[in-house]
Amino acid sequence: MFQQRSSRLLSLLSTSCNRPFVAQRGASLRSRSARAYSIHADASVGNKILGIDPSKLTIEKTTTPKDLLPPEQLVFGRNFTDHMLSLEWTASQGWLPAKITPYQNLSLDPATCVFHYAFECFEGMKAYKDKDGNVRLFRPDRNMERMNKGAARIALPTFDPYAMIDLIGKFVKLDKRFIPDTRGYSLYLRPTLIGTQRTLGVGPPASALLYVIASPVGPYYPTGFKAINLEATDYAVRAWPGGVGDKKLGANYAPCIVPQMQAASRGFQQNLWLFGEEEYITEVGTMNLFVAIKNKETGKPELLTAPLDGTILEGVSRDSVLGLARERLEPKGWNVIERKVRMKEISDAADEGRLMEVFGTGTAVIVAPVRKISWKNKLVDCGLEDHVEAGPIAIQMKEWVEDIQTGKEEHPWSYQVI
Amino acid sequence: MFQQRSSRLLSLLSTSCNRPFVAQRGASLRSRSARAYSIHADASVGNKILGIDPSKLTIEKTTTPKDLLPPEQLVFGRNFTDHMLSLEWTASQGWLPAKITPYQNLSLDPATCVFHYAFECFEGMKAYKDKDGNVRLFRPDRNMERMNKGAARIALPTFDPYAMIDLIGKFVKLDKRFIPDTRGYSLYLRPTLIGTQRTLGVGPPASALLYVIASPVGPYYPTGFKAINLEATDYAVRAWPGGVGDKKLGANYAPCIVPQMQAASRGFQQNLWLFGEEEYITEVGTMNLFVAIKNKETGKPELLTAPLDGTILEGVSRDSVLGLARERLEPKGWNVIERKVRMKEISDAADEGRLMEVFGTGTAVIVAPVRKISWKNKLVDCGLEDHVEAGPIAIQMKEWVEDIQTGKEEHPWSYQVI
Repeated sequence: MFQQRSSRLLSLLSTSCNRPFVAQRGASLRSRSARAYSIHADASVGNKILGIDPSKLTIEKTTTPKDLLPPEQLVFGRNFTDHMLSLEWTASQGWLPAKITPYQNLSLDPATCVFHYAFECFEGMKAYKDKDGNVRLFRPDRNMERMNKGAARIALPTFDPYAMIDLIGKFVKLDKRFIPDTRGYSLYLRPTLIGTQRTLGVGPPASALLYVIASPVGPYYPTGFKAINLEATDYAVRAWPGGVGDKKLGANYAPCIVPQMQAASRGFQQNLWLFGEEEYITEVGTMNLFVAIKNKETGKPELLTAPLDGTILEGVSRDSVLGLARERLEPKGWNVIERKVRMKEISDAADEGRLMEVFGTGTAVIVAPVRKISWKNKLVDCGLEDHVEAGPIAIQMKEWVEDIQTGKEEHPWSYQVI
Repeated sequence: MFQQRSSRLLSLLSTSCNRPFVAQRGASLRSRSARAYSIHADASVGNKILGIDPSKLTIEKTTTPKDLLPPEQLVFGRNFTDHMLSLEWTASQGWLPAKITPYQNLSLDPATCVFHYAFECFEGMKAYKDKDGNVRLFRPDRNMERMNKGAARIALPTFDPYAMIDLIGKFVKLDKRFIPDTRGYSLYLRPTLIGTQRTLGVGPPASALLYVIASPVGPYYPTGFKAINLEATDYAVRAWPGGVGDKKLGANYAPCIVPQMQAASRGFQQNLWLFGEEEYITEVGTMNLFVAIKNKETGKPELLTAPLDGTILEGVSRDSVLGLARERLEPKGWNVIERKVRMKEISDAADEGRLMEVFGTGTAVIVAPVRKISWKNKLVDCGLEDHVEAGPIAIQMKEWVEDIQTGKEEHPWSYQVI
């Protein structure tokens, strides 16, 4: 079908690009066989169309406000606030004025391209209430930057991240009453961008919808940490060099469910994705993974995580943990290192008593301590004593991150909604 | 989020499976490094729920029938018939009775999992009118089998393929007036299966919608063949052993658009996906690829195509061309071979005058002859003389397949709707 559309493609591509942000950036990476992959996501639209103008926001308030649920009844992503934020985009007009409306169904033609070709990307971020009742977002610029990278990679429109943060702030303030003011509680925000073209030809969507919904959520561990057990997955591959596994695309999620169910059927809470002959550790379920280990030669403690080589998501929590570790653990004698880590290294360290702790990181959980990993018919013990549910680094990281998120510690990562 | 759901997962998995079809089949494949990947897509539901019962179909006819478009105005996948077929599924009840209704929008909660995690798979198939005015489908069992494999791989429900073919037949007969009765014209059918659970937790959808829409389409080449030029893509990778590139999932399509646009910006109608250091040819745009070549040693003609190793779609047209070639070309001295083919082999054969022809195969096009391939800053000439737009094998294959599709040749692949 491409043939029929190529003239439009060419006209799109022939105009110069004034995207304010990442649209012209490409990810350059190198596979283990040293082959270079690089894709410049420049499926950009021209310079005559509208960017997002937050001053044009219209607000239609609900006439039937919802009752607030008791905090203990909150389930992740099941209940939503009174309103939603949405912006339509067309290739000819650009971004149309943003609207806040009552939370409502989308009405879409069954031929809409999001149903057929997975033109969809999303973000996960949270809003918090601080001790003074102000609303705070945590590193929203990182989420918007990542969303733009994902959008550009699948030929969806990019946008000015700061205009979107402005709009998200207005939306969250309107539904502020849904943010519980207890530590550990927050409002999970789900910006979502979908292609809305109503034809079956496989090509760049000429229309799209960006919307944000919000779900009040409780702490992931309401009664304190609970360490999880992992099953290493070697029979399926989540992501590969030159692919899209480093983007927050819908496409990366549905294929992960069956391996997760298979791990669950054998009693493991998550699966651990390995890559290649070397069995490098990549992601755990939908989280990044950190390993605290004593160096075999020096005995010095090291905090390791996989590098951004295209096979792992650029987690905001991952980046926060890395940043805090470099700032606050290195002065205490730690080495903080992004490098490929073989599963065998972890297993050997466990056997030799050098494995200190292992934990996942993600927006929902902040950190998720790991007790054991099933790999090659053995159970690798990740260093937690039987009576504890988290190691000291995981506990420390959760505290540091939460202090910043809730404004207990003033930090540039915390964005106060005015 | 998996943790919260694992008890349901486990209860789903603990019941035995009575799926009539492919749900328990897995794809076993081997990467170039000889590592075995195998994923058994057994995310199945229990045996107490309803299968599809075509006798329960209800039909609500439109009160505003559409005007038929003049055949020359038909554009692939842009206009649809009066009606659509749909079936809802829930994990607790199974398949609810099928409905034929007027073609209409879907109304979905913005938290619906199809928008976030790409729980979606689809099929492309066609209905034809034969010389006696009967409606025919082409190998619908292959499409339903493939759809079940895709569904099972992303934890969507599978179904009895023959019940679905029965229902699709009823739907097509109702909208029969939309099938043009000129050779080359047909009714493109798009079965689509989406997850409809309205929560953001990442897990198997507890509800789904299977629907079929239909679009009358003209011949891909209204004025005769038009050979295409390809750009070999080595900076991005479509599929990987152990991944899902062999399934017809929405997830495989959006990431292909930017490389296609980049090829188009340089004047190439499609991109050719290479794989690995060896630069094996895999797919062209959204088609499979065939190469006709004279064997270097024997001089004997060979028809080559990539094997089903997990990195290419199991094309129905691919399988049809292979079958016909084995039946009708081998007796004429051809060897028909599924094997990995390096791009360099094609280039060398072109240089040595042994490259006879190259063509893509797919439902929309049947065959798409290739004139040149841009690879490593050279243009590989695929053997077509300047004044012709297709080679003899491509022309022959299109004729054989169309004869069967339209019932001119009676063949078990053609399924007459009763």
